[in-house]
Amino acid sequence: MTNISQYLLKRLHELGSKHLFGVCGDVVLGFMEQVQKGPVKQINCCNELNAGYAADGYARLHGIGTVVTTFTVGPLSAINAIGGAYAEHVPVVIIAGAPETKHAKASRMLHHTLGPDYAVAREMFHRITVASEYLDDPSKAPEQIDRALSLCLYYKRPIYLEIPADMVIEKCKEPGNFKRIERKSDESSLRDATTEAINLLSKAKNPIILVGMEVLRHQLQEPIKKLLDKTGYGFVAFPTGKAAISEDHPQFIGIYQGNWSRPYVKEMVEKSDLILMLGAFIIDSDTGGFTAKLDIEKLIQVNFEQVKIKNQLFENVKIDEFIDKLIQKLPEGKVSTSLIPASKALKDEYQYTPAPDDKLLVKRFFKRIATFLKPNDVVVVDVGDSLYSTSGMLFPKNATYISQAFYNSIGFSVGAALGASTGQERRTLLFVGDGSFQIGAQEIATMIHTDCKTIVFLLNNDGYGIERAIYDGPYNDLSPWRYHLLPEALGGEKGILVETEGQLEEALKKAENNKFTFIEIKVGRFDFGDILKMAGAAMAEGSKNSYE
Amino acid sequence: MTNISQYLLKRLHELGSKHLFGVCGDVVLGFMEQVQKGPVKQINCCNELNAGYAADGYARLHGIGTVVTTFTVGPLSAINAIGGAYAEHVPVVIIAGAPETKHAKASRMLHHTLGPDYAVAREMFHRITVASEYLDDPSKAPEQIDRALSLCLYYKRPIYLEIPADMVIEKCKEPGNFKRIERKSDESSLRDATTEAINLLSKAKNPIILVGMEVLRHQLQEPIKKLLDKTGYGFVAFPTGKAAISEDHPQFIGIYQGNWSRPYVKEMVEKSDLILMLGAFIIDSDTGGFTAKLDIEKLIQVNFEQVKIKNQLFENVKIDEFIDKLIQKLPEGKVSTSLIPASKALKDEYQYTPAPDDKLLVKRFFKRIATFLKPNDVVVVDVGDSLYSTSGMLFPKNATYISQAFYNSIGFSVGAALGASTGQERRTLLFVGDGSFQIGAQEIATMIHTDCKTIVFLLNNDGYGIERAIYDGPYNDLSPWRYHLLPEALGGEKGILVETEGQLEEALKKAENNKFTFIEIKVGRFDFGDILKMAGAAMAEGSKNSYE
Repeated sequence: MTNISQYLLKRLHELGSKHLFGVCGDVVLGFMEQVQKGPVKQINCCNELNAGYAADGYARLHGIGTVVTTFTVGPLSAINAIGGAYAEHVPVVIIAGAPETKHAKASRMLHHTLGPDYAVAREMFHRITVASEYLDDPSKAPEQIDRALSLCLYYKRPIYLEIPADMVIEKCKEPGNFKRIERKSDESSLRDATTEAINLLSKAKNPIILVGMEVLRHQLQEPIKKLLDKTGYGFVAFPTGKAAISEDHPQFIGIYQGNWSRPYVKEMVEKSDLILMLGAFIIDSDTGGFTAKLDIEKLIQVNFEQVKIKNQLFENVKIDEFIDKLIQKLPEGKVSTSLIPASKALKDEYQYTPAPDDKLLVKRFFKRIATFLKPNDVVVVDVGDSLYSTSGMLFPKNATYISQAFYNSIGFSVGAALGASTGQERRTLLFVGDGSFQIGAQEIATMIHTDCKTIVFLLNNDGYGIERAIYDGPYNDLSPWRYHLLPEALGGEKGILVETEGQLEEALKKAENNKFTFIEIKVGRFDFGDILKMAGAAMAEGSKNSYE
Repeated sequence: MTNISQYLLKRLHELGSKHLFGVCGDVVLGFMEQVQKGPVKQINCCNELNAGYAADGYARLHGIGTVVTTFTVGPLSAINAIGGAYAEHVPVVIIAGAPETKHAKASRMLHHTLGPDYAVAREMFHRITVASEYLDDPSKAPEQIDRALSLCLYYKRPIYLEIPADMVIEKCKEPGNFKRIERKSDESSLRDATTEAINLLSKAKNPIILVGMEVLRHQLQEPIKKLLDKTGYGFVAFPTGKAAISEDHPQFIGIYQGNWSRPYVKEMVEKSDLILMLGAFIIDSDTGGFTAKLDIEKLIQVNFEQVKIKNQLFENVKIDEFIDKLIQKLPEGKVSTSLIPASKALKDEYQYTPAPDDKLLVKRFFKRIATFLKPNDVVVVDVGDSLYSTSGMLFPKNATYISQAFYNSIGFSVGAALGASTGQERRTLLFVGDGSFQIGAQEIATMIHTDCKTIVFLLNNDGYGIERAIYDGPYNDLSPWRYHLLPEALGGEKGILVETEGQLEEALKKAENNKFTFIEIKVGRFDFGDILKMAGAAMAEGSKNSYE
């Protein structure tokens, strides 16, 4: 026998969540005391939203992430992080403490409740999770936990678990073998989809693969690499699929995002007569504000559980099985001589010689960063120029890119970088603008005190740059912080202020010391990267009916 | 003719929201551009949760408060503040931008959405508001806005309004006279309740009035003062009703919170043979963890729309009409000679002579603060010792107390203090512990840059004190910030570090300068006020089934 908390913690550990991110509260103390007994290590966060983002960042590297909070006030503070995980298909577990069951039964007005109905928060989470469970019965809890976790891992979407204080040490059975959901394709649907796809691919002159959000989440890298080997197809990625397949791959052409793409990438994609979209969605922020030219007549859209070929939908087809079939049935192919790999196309783009006294510009900064990156780096970026100026950057071998390129909730990156820096040894870099940073800035304290080696690049352009690029006004102004002083106030060392190219070089040198480093990059108010300018123009167009 | 945004803004201004608290985003830019045209002034906040709390703090002083955010990622980040406003009956308006209506109709995957269903956030808000409206039709919007605002002001609970980007400048009619909901009591129910109450009150030997959360929210101070004048009854208040009636009132006995009360208060209440509860609820945190002895046989519980006398419920009785009837019908009474007014009982408690070299203790700090407070001060407190050590403190004439004494969401006070400091000239003091502060610390930047004169007392006891008092473990530890350095990093002047009684005197002298002042009070890890100790013990008892 074990208890409910230990059951859950053992499962989390077994499935990959060796750490969890928590903010304390009275009705969750008992559960947290159980956490102390192992095997999962708790990281105390400053606030729940950041803890939620940390669980998300952690999940993107470890396959699952966990956040723990107190009742209602905790989960509701974290709910936007869970919304982000839901939108972006990230398997995050949120655990909330709850008052003893007798209080809920009596509808007593207890602190942290919204009134007599104790289920409100739980029901809200039902909208943005694939399971929302109240663990008030020790005989059922193991099954509830396993079912919820299996859904979380199958759909790669968050789940919500609520444990009343009087249940945390209630005895229950020991965890047995964890049963993952293993759903197979409908055989005839898979067969028909495969036949149709093979038919089209065989006839296509210059097919191309387009990789999207689901690839990294559903760990489809290996099958896709096999498919690339077998067929010789070139491939591009949407920003949400960036670096899912290492960008040093000789068949990688570049990032495709409609009119925001580099011209040679745009041409390769838009001249292709068949596009095999793998795990990709048509999202405004992936497609250059819907400027991508993805004619339905030349599309095979393969998603987690369905394939759509031109206008024909094949339901209940599993993406991994479909890719396997393609690997089996497509003939061996050679890489086209006309394919321009990104590694070649962009080679010269990143030539950079610092002009020490020159004021640092955004474009020069990111040009320099491209060569600062190393193989295996984890790069976490927030929305704004941090996202736009890195999405098209050529990444080194096996680097990983973490962003909310779809949900676009500013502030995500600070918590996410904490999560990404936890429990692994790869170098982690964070790029975040001042507006995004102000949302959850305090969490760098947790990085400092848990000895994360994160390198933080804070881009201070004195306001919400992306909003200024759409329509400017005083609502885009921020309080002018002295950002580089912040790490000291939070208990660490002073940060580094960079305003010139020479200062950048010195800062990057210091950043090689393998410890937490905070670098404030101060740039002009309207100093934008090219893609941010285009994104701003597209969003201005999209909201042009808002202005007189 | 005007437009939808201007219609809403004019209404907000008319009803008392001369300011609003906002965080920008692309689909709300158009609305914010309209805000610039007046008459409501926008305060840019660091994040949405804090902006929500600011709107709450503002509403508690001005009768209505407003927060504006972008689509989904914004309101979900603020949702816990709205949950708090719902639980604590605070009229907060949350306005969210939304993508143009055509996108929602086409279910396009747009940044900031959770997927094809654009209504998810709006429906979540439906659970914790009294109205949740989508303003997508200019012909209906004025009516939707007026209906929602009238519900907000009637129930003193939040509302959610969502404006698609293509609607913000759509023309609509000019606002006419605003119609408030004016609901009258059911006459026979009012008559019967009054008769029964008068009967009991006339026979009672030592009736006492107990004031709760609804009094300040529904602005019942004047009728209650008249009732006190007429009857000579003594009165006590729950923490949620603290200072609703000025505590210098000669009939004010003290704060009643069950076993956590001062002995003379406890005795007066518990010896009373009839307790007239006005606008009060039986909440754990108001009643000393349900230790209040409020025998149903001697209770008249008067709430916003009902009266309960002993076990008999009278529905559809309006609290203001019921109090008016009591004033009319009860005979004139004199103040009992046995009544001990708080102003007399506590006079000697606050004698304080600083011992300059002594290490400052929590109890000594709050003793000193009691005499530092001035008439008309606004005192904002967070949960923990800031709440527990001030709830029983004798407040000067017409001071106002702002706390989340029911919902108890830590971090509330920082945003709330920003809101409370905005648009009024009364001195505003904030008392916040380190754990609560870390949740939303960045918002003191907004206080600094909008020239709030707030005096911030940051109680640094190196962790979650209240949780340590319940059950201690590493989960109660916090990153050790250098709090007094934070204001400088956020663009202001360095704060003041206080560790001795002498340093406190110097700091308080500086705090008289009528400008933003940040004082870090460093105390011991287990240095608690008396009530925190009792609250900790009660909560430990309440969660004793959580530990092995």
